[in-house]
Amino acid sequence: MAYRGTKYHGFQRQNNALTIQEVVEKALSRVLDTPTDIYGCSRTDAGVHANKFCFSFTTQRDIRCLNLIRGVNGHLPDDISILSCEEAQEDFHARFSCKAKEYAYLIHNSECKNPFAADLQYQYRRNMDIDLMKKAASHFVGTHDFKSFCSAHNEKQDTVRTIYNLDIEKRDDFVKVLVKGDGFLYNMVRIIVGTLLSVNEGKIDQAQIPEIMNASDRQFAGKTAQAHGLYLNRVFY
Amino acid sequence: MAYRGTKYHGFQRQNNALTIQEVVEKALSRVLDTPTDIYGCSRTDAGVHANKFCFSFTTQRDIRCLNLIRGVNGHLPDDISILSCEEAQEDFHARFSCKAKEYAYLIHNSECKNPFAADLQYQYRRNMDIDLMKKAASHFVGTHDFKSFCSAHNEKQDTVRTIYNLDIEKRDDFVKVLVKGDGFLYNMVRIIVGTLLSVNEGKIDQAQIPEIMNASDRQFAGKTAQAHGLYLNRVFY
Repeated sequence: MAYRGTKYHGFQRQNNALTIQEVVEKALSRVLDTPTDIYGCSRTDAGVHANKFCFSFTTQRDIRCLNLIRGVNGHLPDDISILSCEEAQEDFHARFSCKAKEYAYLIHNSECKNPFAADLQYQYRRNMDIDLMKKAASHFVGTHDFKSFCSAHNEKQDTVRTIYNLDIEKRDDFVKVLVKGDGFLYNMVRIIVGTLLSVNEGKIDQAQIPEIMNASDRQFAGKTAQAHGLYLNRVFY
Repeated sequence: MAYRGTKYHGFQRQNNALTIQEVVEKALSRVLDTPTDIYGCSRTDAGVHANKFCFSFTTQRDIRCLNLIRGVNGHLPDDISILSCEEAQEDFHARFSCKAKEYAYLIHNSECKNPFAADLQYQYRRNMDIDLMKKAASHFVGTHDFKSFCSAHNEKQDTVRTIYNLDIEKRDDFVKVLVKGDGFLYNMVRIIVGTLLSVNEGKIDQAQIPEIMNASDRQFAGKTAQAHGLYLNRVFY
């Protein structure tokens, strides 16, 4: 599915806040006529969007995929859309079967705001030195301990992850940071993007990034970039 | 300026509904510290958007363009954005000096809705025969009486207009109809797009379009396409 995360407190169900999971489960349960839990490929933070988010569920109902898509979409609000559906093997699980994920971070690099995407792109007014940012980005590629680049609220013991690629594309006023890896820690993409922007602003020297990594301390990295520029772009199985 | 028209009853000031003109005049008047009227290049319908809308105004204040842009944008909501500003000759008027206008109509041609653009693209589920629609489009290009292709509420006596080009581009699931002309009657672009869709659906034969034109009667043309797919794209002086 794709969703615009603006109005939601992330994917994962919470007791006291509206989440994508709750809304999708409600729609799916109506179509399948029985309470149905879904398993998402990832939590996403409040305000974060998804271009291709994958979830799995089991059902005894004999229903064609196309009818399921149409039925569920009919019960979903404008900001969530089921894009496709297929039957999987019984041991498939959207989260545990996931091999890699790709995130996109969208920046509108302009003096003037984009009236069509206030909640869909991070507006950044300063000049961007894309070549410098690419140099900085290259340090992240590979297998590293990303403890310096995750939130203090990270709950995972093992902070070693592999980033397969981290690309920065600029077209007119729009900059897209694309990062693919085997997994991501809490706020990791947003802190990496924030660090790339700190490099652009001369606050961090790109050559220092390996040292920051070795320090294993969040305080040396850049700020956490705002949630509304971030998209879960693809998931790989 | 660019604006997302979703929340507004068009550009032109009205007594009982929120319009772009009212909001921009309020912001501009605050920056210039005196009540200031603006003159728009065009009325737009409720829900219609603009990528590059031009307005003019006069002021005695000595203020740099960049400061004006920043100041006014600071007082505007997220869905309206001043993009540029320049000093014009005294006889310039955004509407009367206008030589040509270009509109874009955006169609999301998909079974599934786009959660990022529910109010920014018209969702159309049927297959589109772009070649057939291009044939239909070719009949509109040139100087014609467009009385069959304007709303009954059109107030203009002279219904002859020149369309310079009418192009249809498809990229993935997105179709853009681009039409440039010396001027447009009330609802003219939306009725032309609705007619192209009627041709696609086999309700109107593309070869009949010249006859429909000659009939000078709105009832023979297609439906009026919904407002939220339409953008005033550019204005030429």
